[in-house]
Amino acid sequence: MGTTSSEALAIGIDIGGTGTKFGIVDRIGNVLFSGEMSTKKHQQVETFIDELHEHLIVLIDRCGGIGRIRGIGVGAPNGNYYSGTIEYAPNLPWKGIIPLSKLLSDKFQLPVKLTNDANAAAIGEMMYGAAQGMKDFIMITLGTGVGSGIVANGQLIYGHDGFAGELGHTIVIPDGRMHGGTGKKGSLESYASATGVRLTALELLEKSTERSLLHDADKENLDSKVVYDAAIKGDKLALEIFEFTGKILGLALANAVMFSSPEAIILFGGLTKAGDLILKPTREHMEENLIQIFQNKVKIIVSHLKESDAAILGASALVWEN
Amino acid sequence: MGTTSSEALAIGIDIGGTGTKFGIVDRIGNVLFSGEMSTKKHQQVETFIDELHEHLIVLIDRCGGIGRIRGIGVGAPNGNYYSGTIEYAPNLPWKGIIPLSKLLSDKFQLPVKLTNDANAAAIGEMMYGAAQGMKDFIMITLGTGVGSGIVANGQLIYGHDGFAGELGHTIVIPDGRMHGGTGKKGSLESYASATGVRLTALELLEKSTERSLLHDADKENLDSKVVYDAAIKGDKLALEIFEFTGKILGLALANAVMFSSPEAIILFGGLTKAGDLILKPTREHMEENLIQIFQNKVKIIVSHLKESDAAILGASALVWEN
Repeated sequence: MGTTSSEALAIGIDIGGTGTKFGIVDRIGNVLFSGEMSTKKHQQVETFIDELHEHLIVLIDRCGGIGRIRGIGVGAPNGNYYSGTIEYAPNLPWKGIIPLSKLLSDKFQLPVKLTNDANAAAIGEMMYGAAQGMKDFIMITLGTGVGSGIVANGQLIYGHDGFAGELGHTIVIPDGRMHGGTGKKGSLESYASATGVRLTALELLEKSTERSLLHDADKENLDSKVVYDAAIKGDKLALEIFEFTGKILGLALANAVMFSSPEAIILFGGLTKAGDLILKPTREHMEENLIQIFQNKVKIIVSHLKESDAAILGASALVWEN
Repeated sequence: MGTTSSEALAIGIDIGGTGTKFGIVDRIGNVLFSGEMSTKKHQQVETFIDELHEHLIVLIDRCGGIGRIRGIGVGAPNGNYYSGTIEYAPNLPWKGIIPLSKLLSDKFQLPVKLTNDANAAAIGEMMYGAAQGMKDFIMITLGTGVGSGIVANGQLIYGHDGFAGELGHTIVIPDGRMHGGTGKKGSLESYASATGVRLTALELLEKSTERSLLHDADKENLDSKVVYDAAIKGDKLALEIFEFTGKILGLALANAVMFSSPEAIILFGGLTKAGDLILKPTREHMEENLIQIFQNKVKIIVSHLKESDAAILGASALVWEN
């Protein structure tokens, strides 16, 4: 892998609702070793930490021992940068406030930095990805949920309490679609997440009498991939689903641009695989909602980091961040 | 005024669509001398600068001469911090891109810093007002328009191009009320500005068949002051106008909070004179739209700076800012 035995390394951990990814990364962003385990099956955070330690200790040994590891960076939903705690994360098995950084640093005897997954992704993009050299950009992760990380003046914005950057929960359509997890209506996440696209597909299918390939699709597995496959065959309903999603995402991006005026918005995650089918309406509706001084200035870029590595890379980048 | 003759001073200039305020301010925020002139009557920015210079030179002499002045800070609509230009300001008589900082520094032979009026107000609050000691807050000015200045990590966010903080133009109600100046529909400014409140009053009056003091009011002068006077007498329609405005403002504040997670939101301007009539619904609807981790944390504070001084103070604070 081209690393020398004296070079310092960082551990990156990305905790998701279903699984957790972890790896050991060098200073220039090579993921040397990595692995994956279940989050969901651990009802207790303590057994989760135990299993994580078992896996990682093997990787650490392969790298030449704990002496080479500078620290641990963790991305997790509702991860708080200041307190090192995960607080009331609706998609994790552990409820309330979890002192994750303390549990990890006690176990590994290493310094730990924690933030939410999208903030970690933003730092990863800034160090190794599309945002290198940018001082003002917004990272948006379009996955099961919609996360965001905002960088201004070259710094990640954590806010006074460590929770800044929850663009996914901002209300785009007042009294719009109900979000099952938060109970709020019309948030960006309720439309632009994987679940949101699926709900849009089901709603439009129900209303539509027109012929569509999606009428024949298995409703259980109707996701943005299925919609994409229909759309590239020219299916009108499938195209309409991307148009509708792009309209709402574009509006949310316009609002974000008028707030912090970034040089670029970097998109990451499953939905971006639809390429121009989602990017074109998103760009159009973003521009349409921007006032003149912001128009035709802001790039929308799809992350080029390998999806399997990006989460680990982003988390590990926290270790090097000042 | 208790200043010594050796103490350094700053000039603060606040350029509005109708009038321009200017003054000389000491390091601790005393406005030593101030004045006002028309903006509107100057079709040419050059004659505007000439008149401003004539006024200011008198005040500068009273302070002991130009040697005591450290610099000039200017707040102006669409003022760009990086380029020192005013760009396409819809409410000013000068069109296109105006190199205001250069014109002023050539005339006065002093360093000039320019930003938009709400950003200047935010810096003023941070140095002399309600935001002293805060590292994360949002300033919102509710005047003829709605402006905002966002401070995160102790720094004002200018964005990559110097135009960040246009919260007034974010879309709160998609396909909502048309904004005459921008042509966009449903922006915060189209509801929560002085013009917006007036339009809400006229719309509700037209729809309502109920008795209201506002039916008898002079439609030409129907502003938030008139609505306030009726509301404190218990007029239901007047109360409804504040409730409606607070609902939209509260939603916009919730979205801003979920973006940058500020410790406080500081409100300034005419509408805040309605006190709890506007603050109570604003707070309620903000909380209602926040996800749990942000609830009951963010203070909404009305600026306690003297309105006549605040704009000058804020602009002058740019001179001392690092």
